[in-house]
Amino acid sequence: MFRFRFELLQGGEDSPRLGKLHIRNREIETPVFMPVGTYAAVKTLSPRELEEVGARIILSNAYHLHLRPGEKLVKKLGGIHRFTGWDGGFLTDSGGFQVFSLASMRKIDRRGVEFRSHIDGAREYLTPEDVVRIETDIGADIIMPLDVCTGADTSKEDAREAALRTIEWAKRSRSAWQGIGSNALFGIVQGGMFPDTRAWCAEEMGGLDFPGYAVGGLSVGEEWGKMYELLEATVPLLPGHKPRYLMGVGLPENILEAVLRGVDMFDSVLPTRNARNGTVFVPGGKLVLKNNRYREDEKPIQDGCTCYTCTNFTRAYLRHLFKMREILAYRLATIHNLHYLITFVSKIREAIKGSTLDRFIETFRSGHV
Amino acid sequence: MFRFRFELLQGGEDSPRLGKLHIRNREIETPVFMPVGTYAAVKTLSPRELEEVGARIILSNAYHLHLRPGEKLVKKLGGIHRFTGWDGGFLTDSGGFQVFSLASMRKIDRRGVEFRSHIDGAREYLTPEDVVRIETDIGADIIMPLDVCTGADTSKEDAREAALRTIEWAKRSRSAWQGIGSNALFGIVQGGMFPDTRAWCAEEMGGLDFPGYAVGGLSVGEEWGKMYELLEATVPLLPGHKPRYLMGVGLPENILEAVLRGVDMFDSVLPTRNARNGTVFVPGGKLVLKNNRYREDEKPIQDGCTCYTCTNFTRAYLRHLFKMREILAYRLATIHNLHYLITFVSKIREAIKGSTLDRFIETFRSGHV
Repeated sequence: MFRFRFELLQGGEDSPRLGKLHIRNREIETPVFMPVGTYAAVKTLSPRELEEVGARIILSNAYHLHLRPGEKLVKKLGGIHRFTGWDGGFLTDSGGFQVFSLASMRKIDRRGVEFRSHIDGAREYLTPEDVVRIETDIGADIIMPLDVCTGADTSKEDAREAALRTIEWAKRSRSAWQGIGSNALFGIVQGGMFPDTRAWCAEEMGGLDFPGYAVGGLSVGEEWGKMYELLEATVPLLPGHKPRYLMGVGLPENILEAVLRGVDMFDSVLPTRNARNGTVFVPGGKLVLKNNRYREDEKPIQDGCTCYTCTNFTRAYLRHLFKMREILAYRLATIHNLHYLITFVSKIREAIKGSTLDRFIETFRSGHV
Repeated sequence: MFRFRFELLQGGEDSPRLGKLHIRNREIETPVFMPVGTYAAVKTLSPRELEEVGARIILSNAYHLHLRPGEKLVKKLGGIHRFTGWDGGFLTDSGGFQVFSLASMRKIDRRGVEFRSHIDGAREYLTPEDVVRIETDIGADIIMPLDVCTGADTSKEDAREAALRTIEWAKRSRSAWQGIGSNALFGIVQGGMFPDTRAWCAEEMGGLDFPGYAVGGLSVGEEWGKMYELLEATVPLLPGHKPRYLMGVGLPENILEAVLRGVDMFDSVLPTRNARNGTVFVPGGKLVLKNNRYREDEKPIQDGCTCYTCTNFTRAYLRHLFKMREILAYRLATIHNLHYLITFVSKIREAIKGSTLDRFIETFRSGHV
């Protein structure tokens, strides 16, 4: 049974949108931010805490889970929801980005990718068909096909070739998926830093009628302005009634700008990784909790924040925990950062709903949200 | 205002006892197990989780907190309860055991101890008076004086000398404390592996009329039988209406045997440290969660256990988290171990109350609790 549906409630091709993802027995409002749990766990947090910070869908990684514990085991144990105890949504990334970012390990040919396991160095070969099967075994609700990601300095020729292969692989993934998937397979737009290549790729993908679309290969080192320009060249060409997911973007500023350009879904390791380094989001910027200036600071991370961390702990205590490398430090900072970002996105939704987005943008720019 | 009172509800000098510690606005039933939070945090857990596993009083360390973040800072920030957000009881150990266990760093003379900070190597000198002041600044409810701890192979002469100095320092601690303390200062019995030295030390300490008494320098490598023999030589000589605390003991078997000999309070890093290594308590023994045999095991750690971990996660998922070194693994195992041990002690209390201790011991010995 096909368990995925997207309902567009407001907005069109290239404007801020409101929608709902219907996944299994859940409704998830968009725009939405998805915390990253690479190995089937959002680092440091329990499912209960994820629920409490407002997470509704999280991202995991097919490549990583394939290596450990293996998709067959996850399947045998009832799928990833039952395995992890997380009853919300699961999206799996394919591993295409890992192949790109661990470039020394990769060899890409027409059939698929070869890489060495980052765990034990073993040689692995994965085709687009393998990836769809792995993600289906894992039991994710939304799955991403294997794609070829490029960098900020990739030439136009190479970017075009990568996009072409991404399209070919998307078709093969689609065929493999139609036989087995009760999940939703998204098409991924690549095309490097070139608006026309992106536009062409978006139109090709759009024609394949995927349940949803992603924009990949952005936020890889380019200027923000460039990223927005490329979004403008891509997003309006995607089918308006399908969800659009901007991969790997998680800064409040970037999320807001992308929503303005019609994007619905986001993920990033930023809030969780920054938290573990002691850097936390606050309106107008961030705090580095280890800083000596917080030594005697009895304020919470953020005045008025309703997260567990801010309602119970001072900056001084958090600084102490970070200095002592107490695991509790990483947890409490992670709770705040995810709560901050998820609340930020929910405020964007409210602003779209109430037609107060201009005022919201102003409040955000002046450092008050 | 003196905020500590012990109420002996059942039992006498050398038999299983039931009691109540009245600390600040809390009542804490004894026998009680106290989780260890050396740096003002029980490793991996939040105060909410501590409450949920049934903890009512936790142990922290004056020596460690003196080095980081410093007792003056804790005092300035309202004391350790407010600093940490833990509203239950706090007991601080002095650092005497650390001086003993980090022997290469120490130099003990009549006045006090010299050691090098394990953090930056700086030379520090602490007297018994310093320690009482530090613990009072920290704001703990129960404080331990500086003592001289000895090992399982210490000679009788050295053990006697250490006990003598411990008594001298106890007197000096008492004088320092009477001027400033609204907390409860315990006397610590030392005396090595020698029943008569222990007995003498217990009687000397008993005569000093402390609000409570501890037995230190046990579980330092001696046989269990030896430890029980030394408890029998010590505990009955302590004032019966005062609480007795066996320092650093946390194995279920040892706790049970010590309760039979009239002990009321326990602490140990065992449940928390073992948990972080992936070893968890179950009736009849322990599980090593990383073990391959749990790869597909869909059972919780312990059937029927009501802790958050056992009601939500399988051994297979926990094993995966440990293999991936996910912080969530350490948390979930810590929750179970503390819940297990605290529940174990509460079952001992119930058995004393119901006069079913013999049956409880049998059930325990046969591996059913």
